[in-house]
Amino acid sequence: MTPKNIINELTPIFIPKRVALIGASAKPGKVGRLFMDRFIGAGFKNIVPVNLKEKEILGFKAYPNIKDVPDPIDLAIILLPPFAVKEAVQDCADKKVTGIVINSSGFGETGAEGKAVQDKLVAIARKGGSRLIGPNCIGIFCPAGKLPFPLGAPMEKGKIGIISQSGSLADHLTLITSEMGLRFSKAISVGNECDLKVVDFLEYLGEDPETEIILSYLEGVHEGAQFNRLTQSISKKKPIIIWKCGASEAGAKAAASHTGSMAGSHQIWEGVFENNGIISVGSVEEMIDCAYAFHNTPLPKGNRVAIITGPGGPAVGTTDACVRMGLDVPMISESTQKKLMEALPPVGTSLVNPIDLSMVAAIAPELYGKVVEILSEDDDIDMIIAIGNGGDVFYDGVIKATKNNDKPVALTVLMPMNMIVEGHAKVAGSNTLVYPDPIRAANALSRMAQYAQFRRIHEEE
Amino acid sequence: MTPKNIINELTPIFIPKRVALIGASAKPGKVGRLFMDRFIGAGFKNIVPVNLKEKEILGFKAYPNIKDVPDPIDLAIILLPPFAVKEAVQDCADKKVTGIVINSSGFGETGAEGKAVQDKLVAIARKGGSRLIGPNCIGIFCPAGKLPFPLGAPMEKGKIGIISQSGSLADHLTLITSEMGLRFSKAISVGNECDLKVVDFLEYLGEDPETEIILSYLEGVHEGAQFNRLTQSISKKKPIIIWKCGASEAGAKAAASHTGSMAGSHQIWEGVFENNGIISVGSVEEMIDCAYAFHNTPLPKGNRVAIITGPGGPAVGTTDACVRMGLDVPMISESTQKKLMEALPPVGTSLVNPIDLSMVAAIAPELYGKVVEILSEDDDIDMIIAIGNGGDVFYDGVIKATKNNDKPVALTVLMPMNMIVEGHAKVAGSNTLVYPDPIRAANALSRMAQYAQFRRIHEEE
Repeated sequence: MTPKNIINELTPIFIPKRVALIGASAKPGKVGRLFMDRFIGAGFKNIVPVNLKEKEILGFKAYPNIKDVPDPIDLAIILLPPFAVKEAVQDCADKKVTGIVINSSGFGETGAEGKAVQDKLVAIARKGGSRLIGPNCIGIFCPAGKLPFPLGAPMEKGKIGIISQSGSLADHLTLITSEMGLRFSKAISVGNECDLKVVDFLEYLGEDPETEIILSYLEGVHEGAQFNRLTQSISKKKPIIIWKCGASEAGAKAAASHTGSMAGSHQIWEGVFENNGIISVGSVEEMIDCAYAFHNTPLPKGNRVAIITGPGGPAVGTTDACVRMGLDVPMISESTQKKLMEALPPVGTSLVNPIDLSMVAAIAPELYGKVVEILSEDDDIDMIIAIGNGGDVFYDGVIKATKNNDKPVALTVLMPMNMIVEGHAKVAGSNTLVYPDPIRAANALSRMAQYAQFRRIHEEE
Repeated sequence: MTPKNIINELTPIFIPKRVALIGASAKPGKVGRLFMDRFIGAGFKNIVPVNLKEKEILGFKAYPNIKDVPDPIDLAIILLPPFAVKEAVQDCADKKVTGIVINSSGFGETGAEGKAVQDKLVAIARKGGSRLIGPNCIGIFCPAGKLPFPLGAPMEKGKIGIISQSGSLADHLTLITSEMGLRFSKAISVGNECDLKVVDFLEYLGEDPETEIILSYLEGVHEGAQFNRLTQSISKKKPIIIWKCGASEAGAKAAASHTGSMAGSHQIWEGVFENNGIISVGSVEEMIDCAYAFHNTPLPKGNRVAIITGPGGPAVGTTDACVRMGLDVPMISESTQKKLMEALPPVGTSLVNPIDLSMVAAIAPELYGKVVEILSEDDDIDMIIAIGNGGDVFYDGVIKATKNNDKPVALTVLMPMNMIVEGHAKVAGSNTLVYPDPIRAANALSRMAQYAQFRRIHEEE
């Protein structure tokens, strides 16, 4: 498939005019009801419930079979028990549905027999020109197409794309990050990938102008060469953040029973990640930390970080962490030190780096904004980490100072979690970040600096 | 000092009858006012403000000099500018105050000259039999003695002790963890350690029957042999969790200007930590994650962990993380599998390990409690990690199942942060843990398993 073709072929699936929910239900507790609720909540207009018994479900005219629907269907979502899936796919193929999401599980992930059934489903779909997503997946989240996910994340459009071999992970990611202001272009739960695969969606999101950052949870891919080639070229324009699981023997076993995929050698994966500038993460939290940084702030021009602090201890630990993670914590230049000296009270402060505001920080949090402003004009500093106590004066000063900033600025607030939530809300929409721990800020910035370096090298190509 | 002596000598400082605040003030924004407010808030009765001009501060009779106070003073806290400290220490020594906290900075951390002044302060204090804490510190937090910290953490008694070379870190730790239900016996900000040192407080907390877990932020210690000997013996009865900073050159420089301490070789520290069963952490967050596990749950009997999940992806990643961290994710025994099969609906679940409840988990969260109950009776499982969506039914079921449990159970909830706060509140007081990410749960449990192993080896000694 050429890139142009994949955009043309898959866009009707992401932005469908009409969606059939096969197995739709009005009964609370049923998955067919949950999907109805979510589609209604998302404001999707042309919902077509398919249900053998009901004439109408939650106000939408229902049909006993998708073939009875008079209008064309772009996307069908099959929410049936596994034994009923084959017939439903046949009906969808007869109806020439563009895309079919098979939510049902009990196929390739259960072993060779299930895999054989899966292959038959693909053969059936092919005849109608339909493409399959899944089985064993939650399908597609796309705010532009008003396609919701089960947990009900906000339906505002954004610039992050997700490709996940875990549906729940994709679902949770879209929800967890909403309070931090992250928004998504598309999220795809690929399931067992009987037809459309990780590499197809990677190609799609690589070409998709709405998607600027790609997140992926992977257990394994069969199309290694294609994966390598695609990530290599996409990374040159969009950051790809991947959590690769199934590295341990026990983990690989869990992955096999989860989506039936082969995890493959950890070493090979690591090599591909390094060569292709992929941001490889080790947890949901680290994935979000990195996505947040890429989402809110510009790429740093280098790896030199300035640390501003009140509390001395955490600043020492953050300095260690920055150095360990490959960042440089340089001496602040004399000219900038002079500016800082003029702006700051003389007592108890150290201006070298970390810039230690000492006790003054807690009493006069407006100083953080002043220091950020001065550092923003210093070409020898590429990124800023500020450790403070939160509060409106702290946030407002820094947000103002970073307004036209071309450097990532990460605030860290060693405070109870409800104050972090406040901080996230406070900075949402600005290009300032809030982390609950400075080591996590250092990590996210170091991953950005690494990726920026990859981009600089490959810009020259 | 023998252990018995240190308890006798320092207890009046932790549980003083009368405290003098030298530099107390009624003026908002002044540190002397903040300390007055906090002592009043903590319910400390015999506050003695010392202030040259005022006759009375916030309802407490004030004296121009501590020597004018008719009653004995157990603890004096000096909140004066550095130039006024020497005279104040002289007055305290004349008054034969048991302990003197010097909050003021501008001494040893500024270089050789400041160090020389510090040494003079010690000589002066010695003559009155007074012990010094600091300078450049926030002193002591002790709920039993109603001694507060500046940020105003809750004053309920607990079993965690803190020794910190960063005052703000100690202060933040007591506050951040309060919503998780962690409570403290004593926290000491040691500052520049001109007299009383990390090792003295380590000896004290080692002997202190109220303290069951010790946390420490360290940049360096001068008394290496004593530190080694003390941690070796204390670790056999109490876990010691240490964040050692200043490992990088830039970090060491920051540490030197912070408390004037020498960071020392990272390798030597690591050796001491490993030999002495110390739980070495790399961030505030990791310190809290570990303290939380030790605080709420019993030590595991081995390193075998069972993972219960709804979402498949995070369970695969958690399995990887457990194995990487030295935990075992064994097959669930046939007899336990049989019990699980009887308790669980048949569809979509995998009972091997991870125990995958699949989509059922979200619809029937009461199943988590059932599975935990069954696993609690399985002698081949030492710890449990459950990945779920939160909610009352989820928490209540697990809390009930762990009531008489002798295994650590960590719940992880991949949800927005305000739901984690809810989870922490929900399980507070039970022996169940809530983490925002399963990898962090795996890490905390693995550190407990390592420490439990250290204890088992040394029990035989």
